[in-house]
Amino acid sequence: MSPANQDQEERLFTRKWRWLKALPEMLKAKACEVSANTKKIAQDDPRRVIHSAKVGLALTLVSLFYYYQPLYDNFGFSAMWAVMTVVVVFEFSVGATLGKCLNRGLATLAAGALGVGAHHLASLSGHIGEPILLGFLVFLQAATSTFTRFFPKIKARYDYGLLIFILTFSLISVSGFRDDEIIELAHKRLSTIIIGGLACVIITIFVCPVWAGEDLHNLIAVNVERLANFLEGFGDEYFKTTADEECTDGKSSLGEYKNVLSSKNTEESLANFARWEPRHGHFQFRHPWKQYLKIGTLTRECAYRIDALSGYINSDVQVSLEIRSQIQDSCSKISLECGKALKEVASAIRTMSIPSSANCHVSNSKTAAKSLESLLRSGLWENAELLAVIPTATVTSLLFDVVKCTEKIVDSVHELASMAHFKTVDHTVSPEKEEVPHDIEQLKPVPKIDSPHVVITVYGPTSAAFPENGTPPRATNTTE
Amino acid sequence: MSPANQDQEERLFTRKWRWLKALPEMLKAKACEVSANTKKIAQDDPRRVIHSAKVGLALTLVSLFYYYQPLYDNFGFSAMWAVMTVVVVFEFSVGATLGKCLNRGLATLAAGALGVGAHHLASLSGHIGEPILLGFLVFLQAATSTFTRFFPKIKARYDYGLLIFILTFSLISVSGFRDDEIIELAHKRLSTIIIGGLACVIITIFVCPVWAGEDLHNLIAVNVERLANFLEGFGDEYFKTTADEECTDGKSSLGEYKNVLSSKNTEESLANFARWEPRHGHFQFRHPWKQYLKIGTLTRECAYRIDALSGYINSDVQVSLEIRSQIQDSCSKISLECGKALKEVASAIRTMSIPSSANCHVSNSKTAAKSLESLLRSGLWENAELLAVIPTATVTSLLFDVVKCTEKIVDSVHELASMAHFKTVDHTVSPEKEEVPHDIEQLKPVPKIDSPHVVITVYGPTSAAFPENGTPPRATNTTE
Repeated sequence: MSPANQDQEERLFTRKWRWLKALPEMLKAKACEVSANTKKIAQDDPRRVIHSAKVGLALTLVSLFYYYQPLYDNFGFSAMWAVMTVVVVFEFSVGATLGKCLNRGLATLAAGALGVGAHHLASLSGHIGEPILLGFLVFLQAATSTFTRFFPKIKARYDYGLLIFILTFSLISVSGFRDDEIIELAHKRLSTIIIGGLACVIITIFVCPVWAGEDLHNLIAVNVERLANFLEGFGDEYFKTTADEECTDGKSSLGEYKNVLSSKNTEESLANFARWEPRHGHFQFRHPWKQYLKIGTLTRECAYRIDALSGYINSDVQVSLEIRSQIQDSCSKISLECGKALKEVASAIRTMSIPSSANCHVSNSKTAAKSLESLLRSGLWENAELLAVIPTATVTSLLFDVVKCTEKIVDSVHELASMAHFKTVDHTVSPEKEEVPHDIEQLKPVPKIDSPHVVITVYGPTSAAFPENGTPPRATNTTE
Repeated sequence: MSPANQDQEERLFTRKWRWLKALPEMLKAKACEVSANTKKIAQDDPRRVIHSAKVGLALTLVSLFYYYQPLYDNFGFSAMWAVMTVVVVFEFSVGATLGKCLNRGLATLAAGALGVGAHHLASLSGHIGEPILLGFLVFLQAATSTFTRFFPKIKARYDYGLLIFILTFSLISVSGFRDDEIIELAHKRLSTIIIGGLACVIITIFVCPVWAGEDLHNLIAVNVERLANFLEGFGDEYFKTTADEECTDGKSSLGEYKNVLSSKNTEESLANFARWEPRHGHFQFRHPWKQYLKIGTLTRECAYRIDALSGYINSDVQVSLEIRSQIQDSCSKISLECGKALKEVASAIRTMSIPSSANCHVSNSKTAAKSLESLLRSGLWENAELLAVIPTATVTSLLFDVVKCTEKIVDSVHELASMAHFKTVDHTVSPEKEEVPHDIEQLKPVPKIDSPHVVITVYGPTSAAFPENGTPPRATNTTE
């Protein structure tokens, strides 16, 4: 062995040895990371832990089926369909579970009947014709059902049902070729699926239920509140003269609104699930879930403006303090009043009461916007350098937009309140009471204006951002 | 019978009769609507029709299994697992199908082995202990696996695998209580799943394959192009003085960018699928799909700005024509050059070549931005009313943002080009050739500037809109 080779081998050995020595450390670090992750996921939403236990419970219960002799004698091997149903159907929320159960049950029923029919038809066509006809029928229904799954409305609610339809039809019609007790097979499959489904439904509804409707309701309220938090803090943050250290502190609480930007999919799937749910808590069976989506869309539109606004906080350009101080009062007032209106609206959603004082805050913010407008009209800054004015002008313009968005949100929550029969709350109960100026307008809704609120009707960049029905167009080539 | 009652009955009858007479019309209208819908869905993406036929074909092929005596003798009732696998696993794109196949196969293997182990362990613990121990093990693994599904990274790629893991473990360990040929059951389940999976994989890859990676590649290019179309048309649209009729025409082609706003989920799922795909076409196995997501995020950030810009087209405020005409040239130049840069970049992605002239367009737009800046500095509008200037100022500020976004997009495409080894294209081949000014900077990348391009570094509202890794935070209470 040459010395070079030996040297190389030694180095390789050293490297391996080092890796081996570092291994326990690495494993320990990895384990720590995983456990920290686990803890975080459980703490973020403790219902996850409960859900996991519920799935385990349902599976164990259904397994009893297999153990218990008389039941097994009745169903035999088919009892496994019950186990399968539990695994596949048990979802996080009641609505999702119910939707899947109903989809699975009805699709099995329909496909079972059609499968038996197909089998009967095929058996009439002789020994050679039978497999050919069956194959053709399987092809036809699989292709048709698969294509039907591309319809967006059907995909949203009945996708799983169609999958089970294809599955059951194929199984029943194909296995019928071997097994003449086909009706018994269909019957067994259906009844075991019903047993599994019932176990899921009962456990999901009666053991710490997670209602998708309630989640949607809370999510919408939280999102509106996130915008409110930003707007209430914006004035101080934008016009502050304190040092940089405080910015970073402030930013974390102001940055909450970012979650709103991407909440569309969550809201839509929650609304889909909620429509399957029975009456629960304060929610009727036909609660106006669609209105929540509308509020969600408006909230997101407002969040886009706020996202633009947030870029001007801590921007490193030195706008002259003189200019800032001239508009400080009006801007802070606009932002604060919009924030209050949204906070009032959010708490109204939470308590399911009519947001009585929100309109008052909206009109306050409009008044502030008007006074800012006349300030600008008075040509106060004519001597300032235009370039220095632009950021401030943009902030002003965005704030006008925010007022418009806020008004829309308040209006849509009023619509929700009348649709869902929210109750009128006695004002001694309202926690917002102290802050609300008790002027004459308090309970009178602000009339819709198409009249000369020029500022507000003028700078609306994207009221046409989404089509009328509130759902942005999907990319057509989605493959989810 | 009283005359009133008779009258009422008659009216009821008339109403029913009318409804019955209208029924064929209504049915016809509904049928027309459905068929129009069907046609539209098929025309939007003809691959959907092919996919439906492929599913039918795969199912029919696997059904042969059942018909063919020797095979049936071998597998018996278990052959239905093959049918099931096809129905559940066959997805639109190759990547999704492969991912599900691998998940299903590996999970079945792992859970089967563990299930057999659990069964063996339980059988050692006596007649009474066996069901209790088995029940406990089923509960434990179901709860653990269900909880694991909440980890975002695992959910994205292995969700289906965990579902199948729970299913198989439960089935094997529970059915083992009855059936001592448990290893044979596990073996049959695994081999039929492999047969079903193989049928899917072969058909999905060799019959008109739909590659998720290719779709992602094209989607990104199309989205960049949509922004480019808007920017190229923006100058004319904003500064036009023609009548209103033309606006609506123009808007339809300018509105394309709206699809970009909500493309995040599609992009993410396509990227997830693409990672399962083998080498195909110009794409290697480890193509940098993550970089596409980065480009997608930057594109969306740019789209938010454009969304804001689009509100100022056709806004009903009468900005004085004098002001507009002063900035028209610079603004149009900025927007046009950004549009050209993006178009160049989009076509570079499409052809997988290095976007040679994009940097040149970016630096042109920067030059235009600089000249606009000095125009503003010169205080040209000092006599104008400030309120009238604000919308124009905002447009200017947004355009500066767009320049910044465009530069980021171009940079990230350059990164992609070097990661994925895009080829350098001979300029005689490039279709953009005629439009490209052949100046000295053409092939030299524009140096990154932290230096005094004040305008561009100043007005960036939301460069911090998303965290560093490019994926916006998810709402934590998602229940999808």
